[in-house]
Amino acid sequence: MDYLIDIAKEVVEAIEKAVRKVARENFGKEVAMGADGTPTLYIDKVAEDAALEVIGKEANVLSEEAGYIDNGKKYTFVIDPIDGTRNAAHGIPFYGISIAIGRKSVEDVEYGIVKNIPSGDVYEAIKGEGAYLNGKRIEVSEDYSDIIYILALGESGNEKTWKLVKFNTIRAMGAAAIEMCLVACGAAHAYFMPQESLRTTDFAAGCLIVREAGGEVYNANGEVLNVPFDLKVRSSVLAVASRKIAEALL
Amino acid sequence: MDYLIDIAKEVVEAIEKAVRKVARENFGKEVAMGADGTPTLYIDKVAEDAALEVIGKEANVLSEEAGYIDNGKKYTFVIDPIDGTRNAAHGIPFYGISIAIGRKSVEDVEYGIVKNIPSGDVYEAIKGEGAYLNGKRIEVSEDYSDIIYILALGESGNEKTWKLVKFNTIRAMGAAAIEMCLVACGAAHAYFMPQESLRTTDFAAGCLIVREAGGEVYNANGEVLNVPFDLKVRSSVLAVASRKIAEALL
Repeated sequence: MDYLIDIAKEVVEAIEKAVRKVARENFGKEVAMGADGTPTLYIDKVAEDAALEVIGKEANVLSEEAGYIDNGKKYTFVIDPIDGTRNAAHGIPFYGISIAIGRKSVEDVEYGIVKNIPSGDVYEAIKGEGAYLNGKRIEVSEDYSDIIYILALGESGNEKTWKLVKFNTIRAMGAAAIEMCLVACGAAHAYFMPQESLRTTDFAAGCLIVREAGGEVYNANGEVLNVPFDLKVRSSVLAVASRKIAEALL
Repeated sequence: MDYLIDIAKEVVEAIEKAVRKVARENFGKEVAMGADGTPTLYIDKVAEDAALEVIGKEANVLSEEAGYIDNGKKYTFVIDPIDGTRNAAHGIPFYGISIAIGRKSVEDVEYGIVKNIPSGDVYEAIKGEGAYLNGKRIEVSEDYSDIIYILALGESGNEKTWKLVKFNTIRAMGAAAIEMCLVACGAAHAYFMPQESLRTTDFAAGCLIVREAGGEVYNANGEVLNVPFDLKVRSSVLAVASRKIAEALL
């Protein structure tokens, strides 16, 4: 696993380097159709190409644009080359990279890394060894004196989240993997995407990071979140500091 | 004015340097009561002290914690030493510095600078000379194909914004000055804080930057935003790419 973790870190570096070379105004140009049926933006393409080049044949890959690449290996890199593509495309400085290493499904992920590109923050977790922000151990917040919920709104929301915005401190940052990591490091108490619209590439790394930080991740039905590595499967996501917070939101 | 602009840039550097010296977990410690009656957090205090030391007696100062300091000068530095204090205190990497230089009120501001500390982005405007992001000219977005509204939610929202979250792409980043600058650079189409809760320190720089980028700034009554340099005056803020966007929100 150490060898694969080193490759994952190299992938993060390669994506960041590739993205920094692109002028911001070109981030949002549409270049092709992705495996998921939505248009691929230039920034996604640049980022994914950089990732695939580093990984080569060392592992299988599941990525938003390229789909599943079977290299006959035991482990699969589950990648969102750009988490928060819309932010990146519009110029909102809050987007990143998400990579998980596992075998078949979210529950068997052994390593996850998420990097916030504009801020430089790196969130990481190794299964059974805790979660880290920039190398320092992190834990979810047990301080409920000033609760912050991070929500997906608009068509990604539902009646529940649309009501939550009236009475709570709300953030909506627009980058799911990083938003999950904000729960892991205690910056927020929940991240909630109530619609079944996220894929394993969006949350495989975030799930491990939240859980290793002492938090919990459910779907909108309150079930422990686990999906196979399959781009066709979409899920809701509720990452929380504690079951108590989940119950307030479900 | 050039001399004062140089001082403003030095203040930004000094605040950033001071903040980077503080361990993140100490950002949110309460250290005193501010001029506005809310508790001063350690990060606010550190940032404001750094600002006051650089400015000395070169200009008058209006700042959130220290209040108004009359040094008998023609110009006043209107400062929010930390824009997005709550984000900084909780560990959400989206907060910054806001400084405006003017005489008596928002409409006579001649220079504004806002820095997003985690991302390093610097937004600036000189009256009559346009707005800039990291030295490159910026303009508001005239592309209405994928509209993004940045809203203040929770108790800072109102019936209108609480409904907007159902049908639009919404961001709620939690740092007013930077959020206004995201409208200026075309990253979003509107920033709306419908409650009369912001002070001139929060938006004096952002107003100039949005207007110099071709955008417009109103209050929630649709009036052109202008308030005197006075911490007792609170206002709603609607910064938009165009009047058309304002009308959709009012």
